[in-house]
Amino acid sequence: MASKLIAIVAGVGPGTGASVARKFAATYPVVLLARNPDNYESLAKEINQSGGKAIGISTDIADSGSVKNAIDTIKKEFGSGVGAAAAIFNANSRFARKPFLELTEGDFTDSLDVSAKGGFLFSQAAIPLLLNGVEQKSEHPPTLIFTGATASVRGSALMASFAPGKFALRALSQSLAREFGPKGVHVAHVIIDGVIDIPRTKEWLKDAGPEAKLSPDGIANDYWYLHTQPRTNFSWEIDLRPAVEKW
Amino acid sequence: MASKLIAIVAGVGPGTGASVARKFAATYPVVLLARNPDNYESLAKEINQSGGKAIGISTDIADSGSVKNAIDTIKKEFGSGVGAAAAIFNANSRFARKPFLELTEGDFTDSLDVSAKGGFLFSQAAIPLLLNGVEQKSEHPPTLIFTGATASVRGSALMASFAPGKFALRALSQSLAREFGPKGVHVAHVIIDGVIDIPRTKEWLKDAGPEAKLSPDGIANDYWYLHTQPRTNFSWEIDLRPAVEKW
Amino acid sequence: MASKLIAIVAGVGPGTGASVARKFAATYPVVLLARNPDNYESLAKEINQSGGKAIGISTDIADSGSVKNAIDTIKKEFGSGVGAAAAIFNANSRFARKPFLELTEGDFTDSLDVSAKGGFLFSQAAIPLLLNGVEQKSEHPPTLIFTGATASVRGSALMASFAPGKFALRALSQSLAREFGPKGVHVAHVIIDGVIDIPRTKEWLKDAGPEAKLSPDGIANDYWYLHTQPRTNFSWEIDLRPAVEKW
Amino acid sequence: MASKLIAIVAGVGPGTGASVARKFAATYPVVLLARNPDNYESLAKEINQSGGKAIGISTDIADSGSVKNAIDTIKKEFGSGVGAAAAIFNANSRFARKPFLELTEGDFTDSLDVSAKGGFLFSQAAIPLLLNGVEQKSEHPPTLIFTGATASVRGSALMASFAPGKFALRALSQSLAREFGPKGVHVAHVIIDGVIDIPRTKEWLKDAGPEAKLSPDGIANDYWYLHTQPRTNFSWEIDLRPAVEKW
Repeated sequence: MASKLIAIVAGVGPGTGASVARKFAATYPVVLLARNPDNYESLAKEINQSGGKAIGISTDIADSGSVKNAIDTIKKEFGSGVGAAAAIFNANSRFARKPFLELTEGDFTDSLDVSAKGGFLFSQAAIPLLLNGVEQKSEHPPTLIFTGATASVRGSALMASFAPGKFALRALSQSLAREFGPKGVHVAHVIIDGVIDIPRTKEWLKDAGPEAKLSPDGIANDYWYLHTQPRTNFSWEIDLRPAVEKW
Repeated sequence: MASKLIAIVAGVGPGTGASVARKFAATYPVVLLARNPDNYESLAKEINQSGGKAIGISTDIADSGSVKNAIDTIKKEFGSGVGAAAAIFNANSRFARKPFLELTEGDFTDSLDVSAKGGFLFSQAAIPLLLNGVEQKSEHPPTLIFTGATASVRGSALMASFAPGKFALRALSQSLAREFGPKGVHVAHVIIDGVIDIPRTKEWLKDAGPEAKLSPDGIANDYWYLHTQPRTNFSWEIDLRPAVEKW
Repeated sequence: MASKLIAIVAGVGPGTGASVARKFAATYPVVLLARNPDNYESLAKEINQSGGKAIGISTDIADSGSVKNAIDTIKKEFGSGVGAAAAIFNANSRFARKPFLELTEGDFTDSLDVSAKGGFLFSQAAIPLLLNGVEQKSEHPPTLIFTGATASVRGSALMASFAPGKFALRALSQSLAREFGPKGVHVAHVIIDGVIDIPRTKEWLKDAGPEAKLSPDGIANDYWYLHTQPRTNFSWEIDLRPAVEKW
Repeated sequence: MASKLIAIVAGVGPGTGASVARKFAATYPVVLLARNPDNYESLAKEINQSGGKAIGISTDIADSGSVKNAIDTIKKEFGSGVGAAAAIFNANSRFARKPFLELTEGDFTDSLDVSAKGGFLFSQAAIPLLLNGVEQKSEHPPTLIFTGATASVRGSALMASFAPGKFALRALSQSLAREFGPKGVHVAHVIIDGVIDIPRTKEWLKDAGPEAKLSPDGIANDYWYLHTQPRTNFSWEIDLRPAVEKW
């Protein structure tokens, strides 16, 4: 793997984040960001042992100091002029599904902090590196991908603590797509409309068959595909759901 | 004015907020919320002198303590079981139209704080009073109206500090409409798509003719109309723009 | 009723069309269009006997010759320079809710013919009269309103014969709003999201309570309200649904 | 090429259709449909000479007899139980960009006939073959792709003859995605938002640089990618535009 350009994945956990990191690690050194090192340590080891390169940095994506520290660490590791080929924002807050009047202020602001403010801080940190990637003539247009959800486009009852942050992130991604597309950075937003097949959801939808949940590796393929689209053919938004999903 | 039910307007200034307050003051005692008393004092006086009833409460809508204080003041003034016929969220943050990489963290979070967190805090404070209004058999279904903007549905370039908060507020309003409609509260979201004719915009669009800006009194009429819709015919969302607007 | 301007309602039946016609007949002479005279005869009589003025014209809205004949009849009755204050397109085809592969070509084209081609023919016939209304300085901006449905914004399973026509009509209305707003004609689209309370739906939703269906008179009020919006504050689109509706 | 499953492309011309046909011809025998044989003859020859297999059938996609004839020809050529791996609807009518009141009835209905009725007839013809493909265990889920445009989601001024057909086609595709996804057929809709780089547009956007137009081969790659998505991860809709596009 000769690439000097890196990929950064924010929100690495046992599901989409890990699959995306593995996929991009086949081509780029990857930086894994998560608050809890438990979420990236074994993954980083796995990638490093299988011939790739990965570093993990404990990062609170909603804290500007913590995000700045992550960027400093990246520059120390990869050089101050390092370029990024891809930056993936996959962070999610915990999700309080409650009647609106039972929500605490923290239930609401946690989601906003991670999805909206976290998206903002990550983008401000990543875009200069992606613009470096443009200058350094990356093979594929440097790509900034945001993971969205059904709640990115639909405010359902009992979703008042979750949908606002997801709508906000979608707005951010659209604004960035319009501002940075002409500068050569591909900004995309992916609406994940369904349950992702991860350890935590193992018991869900068992009656609906083996294909009722989204495959994290499939999502990673889709992200990689977005990354490979040429400058003439950028997608801003795609949706993803299992064939059997009711929607 | 015999109504025991009140109307609450958050974000009273020289434009939409004042027009909405005057309109609802013809039927209900009105509570005017703004951070700066300059924004409601003369309006409250005007309403009180012309036969209505208004009180102003200095409130930082993004601060839970301040919002709680406003509700305490309302209950002291109108009784602890007071019902609301209408609550209008018209608060807006300052708006930083800048290239994304020049935005400060405060530019971004100010908008989120006011539009998203402010909308949340206001809704949690107002909905119990609106539910009281349902119980007290208000003439028109108690109504919670949110002021949106073009940026509620479109993330444009250079709008990355403003659109996320507005998208978030729209998500909130949709979630609340779905949760509280069946409980008798009418939740609506209004997309203001154009320049509002207020002192600050006096010099704008002068060449486009006298009808190129939205009339704040017209907006107030639309809000009142939404308020009068019966339970069989609720609108969640309407857009509003001048006839000559390009969109 | 001194108005020289008329209102035209296409798609008069026992529900929304009749309510809208009665509402507008309080201010304007009304022209009632329906394929089957049974659908307007007693209504025209009712309006004429209660001090209004109404004429019915048997019209196949999807047939250009028939629409032309309707306009000729209108001009003979009201003068060749007659202006219109309002034109409401409320026509609906029969609706075949079937698995896609069981749809006949006619199932599909009937909906397209009425909703899309009918909307086109009606608009081409009505807009010149609405522009006359602008010139003749109508009190309210001349208004062209289209009745939409849930299927105007959502293509559900088993709705493949109905949603395409409704989407097409919405596209038409948006194109016309953008073209004719600046010329003073208010074009609006109303998404009716729920069951309308008409004789045919009498047995529907009986368990959901007396307010589970949209009131046709309520819809008529909403249409009238849209008609009265001033040029500074046009709505293009509103949605309407019962408070208890799940959406 | 050992596949017994075929791909069908409706609307083969010098641009997207030809690129898509070439792309799918690398894996499947392809059937090329166009009204005018000039649009497919040289392409079919090119594919057949380079080791693929292609047949062209002169087809008026808006005429049910002509579409039936195409299917009969396909069955004669490939067997009555032939399965399809992919069916791409890329037909477009001529496009009359005129003030609304200058549109002829034909300007309007041509677009509807091709986009809406044509989409319907093609889908009814292709879906049974795609369902055969499911039964015959195609490597990738059989895929039905519709080519959309900016006008699929936006009714602009002067687009009243074009947007309704495109909105209708989008509605159809969404209804079909919801009905046939659970049956294993992947239905997708692609919003092409920009100018495609074809001979006819050679002189367009010359000042905007070599990447200001969508590449037809790039679109073909995107269609192929959609085709390869597994049943756990279907996209219904993606948008595509050049990086430099203003939107």
